[in-house]
Amino acid sequence: MKDIIKQMDKAFDSRVRIAIMSILMVSKDWVDFNSLKERLGVTDGNLASHTASLERRQYIEVRKRFIGKRPNTSYRVTPLGKEGFTNYVNALKQLLQIKQ
Amino acid sequence: MKDIIKQMDKAFDSRVRIAIMSILMVSKDWVDFNSLKERLGVTDGNLASHTASLERRQYIEVRKRFIGKRPNTSYRVTPLGKEGFTNYVNALKQLLQIKQ
Repeated sequence: MKDIIKQMDKAFDSRVRIAIMSILMVSKDWVDFNSLKERLGVTDGNLASHTASLERRQYIEVRKRFIGKRPNTSYRVTPLGKEGFTNYVNALKQLLQIKQ
Repeated sequence: MKDIIKQMDKAFDSRVRIAIMSILMVSKDWVDFNSLKERLGVTDGNLASHTASLERRQYIEVRKRFIGKRPNTSYRVTPLGKEGFTNYVNALKQLLQIKQ
């Protein structure tokens, strides 16, 4: 079990970050901040802090631009993020299936 | 997705706490501190802090006694812990299966 835990990056130890990654993993395009916020039902500050921590680990990347006169921020998963999250989920599944 | 996240108690947002709960959920008897520590590969302080937080939420209960002259601490899951963790895991599974 030690080895399973070691494969899991603590950066994903959060139901909100797991939900963000789950959305980005299956999205073929950038997903914008407001759409993430609505789907997750979290505040601006809460979402910003979770995306910032995933960005620091280079698991997601951010795109900031203007659509007309409105600033628009969106995210997508990086190859490193895909790998890290896949390892996390696989390890999680093993944890949840353990027998004494 | 908001509703799924709401079913998940933040108290389980930790791979170590998920591992502790997974072990206790399938154990028919009390599991002692040292055996948990070895299986998880964590330090005394780390394990003590995770078990304390699960205990505060009344998800696990602790038994402290002496075996001969040695103090022995062990844990088991409570009915509330079974319910909360089952909800968490079911919600987690839904999160991980989402489609855009």
